Amino acid sequence: MKALQYRTIGARPELVEVEKPAPGPSEVLLRVTAAGACHSDEFIMGASAEDYYFKPLPLTLGHEVAGVVEEVGAGVHGVEVGESVLVYGPWGCGRCYACASGEEQNCEQGMRAPGIFSDGGMAEYMIVDDARHLVPLGDLDPVQNVSLTDAGLTPYRAVKSALPRLTPGTTAVVIGSGGLGHVAIQILKALSQATVVVLDVAEDKLALAREVGADHTFVSDTDAIGSVKDLTRGLGADVVLDFVGIQPTADLAAGMVRVGGQVVVVGVASGAVRIGQTTVPLDVTGRAINWGSRTELMEVVELAKRGAITIHVEEFPLDRATEAYDRLHAGQVRGRAVIVP
Amino acid sequence: MKALQYRTIGARPELVEVEKPAPGPSEVLLRVTAAGACHSDEFIMGASAEDYYFKPLPLTLGHEVAGVVEEVGAGVHGVEVGESVLVYGPWGCGRCYACASGEEQNCEQGMRAPGIFSDGGMAEYMIVDDARHLVPLGDLDPVQNVSLTDAGLTPYRAVKSALPRLTPGTTAVVIGSGGLGHVAIQILKALSQATVVVLDVAEDKLALAREVGADHTFVSDTDAIGSVKDLTRGLGADVVLDFVGIQPTADLAAGMVRVGGQVVVVGVASGAVRIGQTTVPLDVTGRAINWGSRTELMEVVELAKRGAITIHVEEFPLDRATEAYDRLHAGQVRGRAVIVP
Amino acid sequence: MKALQYRTIGARPELVEVEKPAPGPSEVLLRVTAAGACHSDEFIMGASAEDYYFKPLPLTLGHEVAGVVEEVGAGVHGVEVGESVLVYGPWGCGRCYACASGEEQNCEQGMRAPGIFSDGGMAEYMIVDDARHLVPLGDLDPVQNVSLTDAGLTPYRAVKSALPRLTPGTTAVVIGSGGLGHVAIQILKALSQATVVVLDVAEDKLALAREVGADHTFVSDTDAIGSVKDLTRGLGADVVLDFVGIQPTADLAAGMVRVGGQVVVVGVASGAVRIGQTTVPLDVTGRAINWGSRTELMEVVELAKRGAITIHVEEFPLDRATEAYDRLHAGQVRGRAVIVP
Amino acid sequence: MKALQYRTIGARPELVEVEKPAPGPSEVLLRVTAAGACHSDEFIMGASAEDYYFKPLPLTLGHEVAGVVEEVGAGVHGVEVGESVLVYGPWGCGRCYACASGEEQNCEQGMRAPGIFSDGGMAEYMIVDDARHLVPLGDLDPVQNVSLTDAGLTPYRAVKSALPRLTPGTTAVVIGSGGLGHVAIQILKALSQATVVVLDVAEDKLALAREVGADHTFVSDTDAIGSVKDLTRGLGADVVLDFVGIQPTADLAAGMVRVGGQVVVVGVASGAVRIGQTTVPLDVTGRAINWGSRTELMEVVELAKRGAITIHVEEFPLDRATEAYDRLHAGQVRGRAVIVP
Repeated sequence: MKALQYRTIGARPELVEVEKPAPGPSEVLLRVTAAGACHSDEFIMGASAEDYYFKPLPLTLGHEVAGVVEEVGAGVHGVEVGESVLVYGPWGCGRCYACASGEEQNCEQGMRAPGIFSDGGMAEYMIVDDARHLVPLGDLDPVQNVSLTDAGLTPYRAVKSALPRLTPGTTAVVIGSGGLGHVAIQILKALSQATVVVLDVAEDKLALAREVGADHTFVSDTDAIGSVKDLTRGLGADVVLDFVGIQPTADLAAGMVRVGGQVVVVGVASGAVRIGQTTVPLDVTGRAINWGSRTELMEVVELAKRGAITIHVEEFPLDRATEAYDRLHAGQVRGRAVIVP
Repeated sequence: MKALQYRTIGARPELVEVEKPAPGPSEVLLRVTAAGACHSDEFIMGASAEDYYFKPLPLTLGHEVAGVVEEVGAGVHGVEVGESVLVYGPWGCGRCYACASGEEQNCEQGMRAPGIFSDGGMAEYMIVDDARHLVPLGDLDPVQNVSLTDAGLTPYRAVKSALPRLTPGTTAVVIGSGGLGHVAIQILKALSQATVVVLDVAEDKLALAREVGADHTFVSDTDAIGSVKDLTRGLGADVVLDFVGIQPTADLAAGMVRVGGQVVVVGVASGAVRIGQTTVPLDVTGRAINWGSRTELMEVVELAKRGAITIHVEEFPLDRATEAYDRLHAGQVRGRAVIVP
Repeated sequence: MKALQYRTIGARPELVEVEKPAPGPSEVLLRVTAAGACHSDEFIMGASAEDYYFKPLPLTLGHEVAGVVEEVGAGVHGVEVGESVLVYGPWGCGRCYACASGEEQNCEQGMRAPGIFSDGGMAEYMIVDDARHLVPLGDLDPVQNVSLTDAGLTPYRAVKSALPRLTPGTTAVVIGSGGLGHVAIQILKALSQATVVVLDVAEDKLALAREVGADHTFVSDTDAIGSVKDLTRGLGADVVLDFVGIQPTADLAAGMVRVGGQVVVVGVASGAVRIGQTTVPLDVTGRAINWGSRTELMEVVELAKRGAITIHVEEFPLDRATEAYDRLHAGQVRGRAVIVP
Repeated sequence: MKALQYRTIGARPELVEVEKPAPGPSEVLLRVTAAGACHSDEFIMGASAEDYYFKPLPLTLGHEVAGVVEEVGAGVHGVEVGESVLVYGPWGCGRCYACASGEEQNCEQGMRAPGIFSDGGMAEYMIVDDARHLVPLGDLDPVQNVSLTDAGLTPYRAVKSALPRLTPGTTAVVIGSGGLGHVAIQILKALSQATVVVLDVAEDKLALAREVGADHTFVSDTDAIGSVKDLTRGLGADVVLDFVGIQPTADLAAGMVRVGGQVVVVGVASGAVRIGQTTVPLDVTGRAINWGSRTELMEVVELAKRGAITIHVEEFPLDRATEAYDRLHAGQVRGRAVIVP
């Protein structure tokens, strides 16, 4: 079968012919229907030989995966051949406290995500280690919805962690209306009556934000602090979700959150919110979100089934997968790039 | 191997010789180190042929099980032969929403507990369907601790559901200081500073309650309502945990709970608390607890490791297992009867 | 000034001329802009002399009140003459644990609601005991929004108590699409993505339910249990909110709630959900809701400001207030009857 | 009457004779029975003229106050002359959302604490603005318990914010076993079964920590990270409470918290925990705690009534109050310095 593999440190990924895998006991073989390309794949392929701590090369890429059950291994129950599924990505050990509550992304053994720590979904077929990592997709289109597994799940967890504070009359700020941020806006609108304010440096991103429901949009600079204060009787935002994660956006967040409020840092970059008695308003909480739990993925899929969230995707056949990464690298993909074998 | 089986509707359980099972893919074979006898086994053996909806006979009894891993089936990872474990009893499908959050006792497919819906632990060996149902016991003694799996877990869930209400200055009432109730008292003392009041009809049970930490004990009759009111400035108890579950105890609970309080019904009997606008004080919550989740069992085991809870047990060799049931039936067991193969 | 008073046990309320009150220290005098007529007023006027435990007659009716601040007593700070406000009705002592957390409806001293335990708002002016019981109404129309104080607040608390269970993919059933029920539907749609099913005996009420957002409506009889099961893969509803509160609706609720689900009884009648181990599915919670807290009223007002909820009202001048009660008694009011002085 | 006042920027506080105040409407006059001296008083008196933003001088010091009700103003209900009380310090407006839920320390108008923004309790008498700020002390000794209002309340809120994570089997680290830290240790032991590890630079503070219940103590340096990892199977602490708040302790906290854990910064200094995707383990929460709510103070008082917490105090008559501050400044007070008029 064909697979897109990262084979040489520093080189581009290559489309190669590899053997079709067979499911061992407790494993499930999927015929892949869609696989999302993610900025974090770039991060993996950008690591030097010393810093590379992922699956030893070659690595088949792809941690956002949809597929159809092709074959089940011995000892697998309750999964039907032909079932259309999404793959829950942060595979844990299944037995530790975190895994027992479905929070496998925080597994005590570390998570073994496919496409990162084992072979992923940018191929015609893929092995899933355990049936518990399959979430039924039902009639949802795999290409349109494969990115629910990461670009949907991560902002969902971020918003859900803040929901108890987002009672009617409150204000939530989303910094960065990109792949994850534009989904966060939709989730906020679906699950709360908070006023949603969106900041971004690019005007087309702000237009997208308004399209998907933002109540107010501003250019993301230090003037935005005053704009948010003006909207909130001078108090600041109850919740700020930072989908960029660099120091300037973290500082913006700290500057506009109110007493007793919450900042959630989602964007994977080197910025940080400084939580202390003299660095943020009194009683502020900061949170660094990590992907999501099994039930959270189920909830995201249900949001999609109700039409409450839609992820914009750009489709590429597997043969042109390297092109998808080129465009991703160049910042030319609008929404999410999805590979279709 | 020897196994205690319920073989004929209406008959007593029999000790028989059966074949030692072998673990299939994803299964684990345990050498049983202890198995608890429970009143609910009596319930199963009391059902008429029409009402019997459990595993088709013969049924090896025992849903409270401790063991040592003897052999693992194909596809089982992270389990070591020789590991001492407890068996999490309410086996679910592993894939539904409830199971994905570890609440397998509420599985959408219904739970398939061993000793009830499949062969249990009153035997020399037992098959566990999946490694996720094993909780490490560490250095804890299996005989002393096997009943954590039910007589510990169920009151733990009951108390935990009420903990947010049990802030310092509040009062919790435990009705019934028997097998589960005397554990609940210990859990309340370990995890809160609530005043713990215990009601029972038997003076020796009240003595046991005081031994394990009860602040006040009263004979369980309608006078107890006044006694609880006297202790609470006339307001009533913040939380009432009913471990008997008959209508008179449910009525007691409803009569002594305060405005905004909570009643938890744990005892399996036909009683019920009537939750309505004119039947209980304003804003009262009622809860009917069911066994517990995987992480709750882990937490109970940790309580035992810290010495915060101790379950009184009476030990029987497998050869005398039928005697254990006879004594249980006659109400002669103090604490929990445990079978040791 | 004119006031609508209940003056003689068993008689109809009378419009009388009484002295305009003056605010004492810490009190606030309101010029009433609107006052809602409620079924519970009927309950008060239906009590026999022996059962009457409310304010000694005469009693000025009206516990749903909007007004404009006319004058403030000594020691009142932070309230401006001319401010448009709603009156938070369940006045507590202000110092007990419940009051300190804003849950004055559960005050340890009992609540002293105006129109019930002190003179209410069916008059040209009204005394409010403390500034903390005033919630700013802003630009909202008092007549359209006065009933937020009860017909909005009570269903809000009911829904909010169930929100953690109402994750995407779940189902909520509302029994009774009347004055409170039709608001509950709107709140559910505003704050969750749960599927909302509504039951009522009257077809016009079901039409109203669909108008305000119900996903499915059914006639409220025992067939409804099957209809709800059909919509939920046979599992039953995650949450059932009973706005009727009689035994048949409580039984319906118990019959259609799923394992681990929640029933909330809001309707003030003599029915009750029987919470026990053999009377409802496993792990079910029942709750009897009482009015609401101060912050919950603030949140309801914010929902109205965002246009997320609208209460249908029928307007009567104070001179025709007795007529409002006649029509209410005859079941001829659609939505809420509001008196405008 | 005598009062200890801060009268000149940069000068020491002075004991002066001032007029005994009289309670206005809604106010309460207390005869002070005890007043705690706090490091934050030093902070106030250390501010330069430009940075001084507190009550215009002269300022009667003392924000930890116990007293007996001497006289109540007009419009005050439910308070009896002679009642022994503690003063809840963070006075808010009473009407905003935060105040309505009892979280007056986060008042939208800013809090007006006595001894900071109005005259405090280092005097023979003191005015309290509203009866809601009085918490009954019952039979508790005022001198021994006056510091519950801050040195008890603040660590209580810190621990309570972390309690849901502190299930059995978890580990909490307390950095700094001083005035607040040694109370935090007792609260952790009273309300959880977490393993409590304490770090401090001073051996006598570690001895105090062991006296009040610490399970393990270590010198607070970077080796402590390894010690905590050794105690937690290499995973790190579930919760770290930093009562020092300088950058080295914040860095320690970040270095020893586990995936999914929580850091609470209580110490008022310029340090901060950097919450971001690359600066702490995945899914970590940081919290900067601010004093506490009205109900939290009630809960702390109940803990003291049960004997679950004891604050060590050193007593000074009002005439020697300046000496108390001298000793506090020199770090010579063990526990809390309390002034007794």
